[in-house]
Amino acid sequence: MKKLILVRHGESEWNKMNLFTGWTDVDLTYFGQCEAYQAGRLLKEEGYRPTMCYTSYLKRAVKTLNQILDAMDMDYLPVEKSWRLNEKSYGALQGKNKAETKEKYGEEMLMKWRRSYDVQPPALAMDGKGSPRRDPRYDEIPDNELPLTEALKDTIARLMPYYEGTILKAFEKNDEVLVVAHGNSLRGIVKTLKGMGDDEIVGFNIPTAVPYIFEFDDQMNLQKDYYLGNQEEIQKKIDGVKNQANKK
Amino acid sequence: MKKLILVRHGESEWNKMNLFTGWTDVDLTYFGQCEAYQAGRLLKEEGYRPTMCYTSYLKRAVKTLNQILDAMDMDYLPVEKSWRLNEKSYGALQGKNKAETKEKYGEEMLMKWRRSYDVQPPALAMDGKGSPRRDPRYDEIPDNELPLTEALKDTIARLMPYYEGTILKAFEKNDEVLVVAHGNSLRGIVKTLKGMGDDEIVGFNIPTAVPYIFEFDDQMNLQKDYYLGNQEEIQKKIDGVKNQANKK
Repeated sequence: MKKLILVRHGESEWNKMNLFTGWTDVDLTYFGQCEAYQAGRLLKEEGYRPTMCYTSYLKRAVKTLNQILDAMDMDYLPVEKSWRLNEKSYGALQGKNKAETKEKYGEEMLMKWRRSYDVQPPALAMDGKGSPRRDPRYDEIPDNELPLTEALKDTIARLMPYYEGTILKAFEKNDEVLVVAHGNSLRGIVKTLKGMGDDEIVGFNIPTAVPYIFEFDDQMNLQKDYYLGNQEEIQKKIDGVKNQANKK
Repeated sequence: MKKLILVRHGESEWNKMNLFTGWTDVDLTYFGQCEAYQAGRLLKEEGYRPTMCYTSYLKRAVKTLNQILDAMDMDYLPVEKSWRLNEKSYGALQGKNKAETKEKYGEEMLMKWRRSYDVQPPALAMDGKGSPRRDPRYDEIPDNELPLTEALKDTIARLMPYYEGTILKAFEKNDEVLVVAHGNSLRGIVKTLKGMGDDEIVGFNIPTAVPYIFEFDDQMNLQKDYYLGNQEEIQKKIDGVKNQANKK
């Protein structure tokens, strides 16, 4: 049997402050670190033994993975990082408060930016403040591929070459693969694996720091998927994600 | 100009307890984490910008590197881990107290095991307690290459293919390379770079969590090498390493 383990990063400083984060490289809160460590402890107790790990270029994902590996006593595992696993770019909304954005632009517009499949938030300027072009870690990305804003559709489009060409391919040599990433990049993987429609995936909320397991047969046909842990607690976390826009 | 940055891991639990560690996968102390974070802060302040990182399979080195990258705001950097950067195997001495070993076997024998170039401590049994053969992380190493004990000479011999074939080769594409490893695997690199004799390297003590910088011209000729930071503090750390066998 093959297993893909998806984990969304733990609580970040800006989750807590209810700001749009996207590609902004904000840190985990102390709670977020603990959540991540607990996810690793759970994976260890349940006997998971990944042999390859993937994460994004954003520290909230990298540090969640570090905590998980530490809790599993598997700090030695190989880790590959890719910008293609980064969160959806929220463009010019990055750094803005979600509740204030709702007051300013109205709930309908906000929900389109947050939850439509193909509506992009306002874009950053290529050479402007907050542009990923100013950040050397993205030097490898040519201008025409560098996200200055993204709809979920765009996030999934830039994720797919990496998911198919690297992560799925890793199962040729590995039985268990661990991916630590973000709400929207993980949506892309879940959409593909479960054959969800565009409308369905935008309403699908992945809780932070909960191992989400996909089991495959040896031909990589999906057999089942489930969250690891206390299901009631997990449902509370999922509902928390849904209600973010109403928090101040 | 090209720069190689070497860092020995921060204080580990067994450094503190004065036990032979070798391939035993002990954790950093809290002080060790702080030392590591400070090393990263110093590198950042001094303007270092590595683009590739290497470390061992042992968590005290991996976690030192994680702390350094975090302090530098460079968690996204690529990291490659290799068993060839592991500490020298102390064989059957692993887990034994250094001061008690001195009382039992005498200072001369102890100093040979700790500081001779080619005398191996007593070996572990391939299938015995503490053997790396029982640890799945080393499955890739064939029996005839798996260290059950090592003299410094052996550590350097298994390190060299990786140092020459991977780390030095990385300078073809990178100007600054960061290596976080162990007292004896780093001795191997320093010996080669500075053309030290066998006797000289065994008396050369590398302090924990201090960035040790090697500067090269574009043809990789060594120009100079120096420790980064307060030189008086660094000398105290070096003297501390030397006096370990006398601590209880």
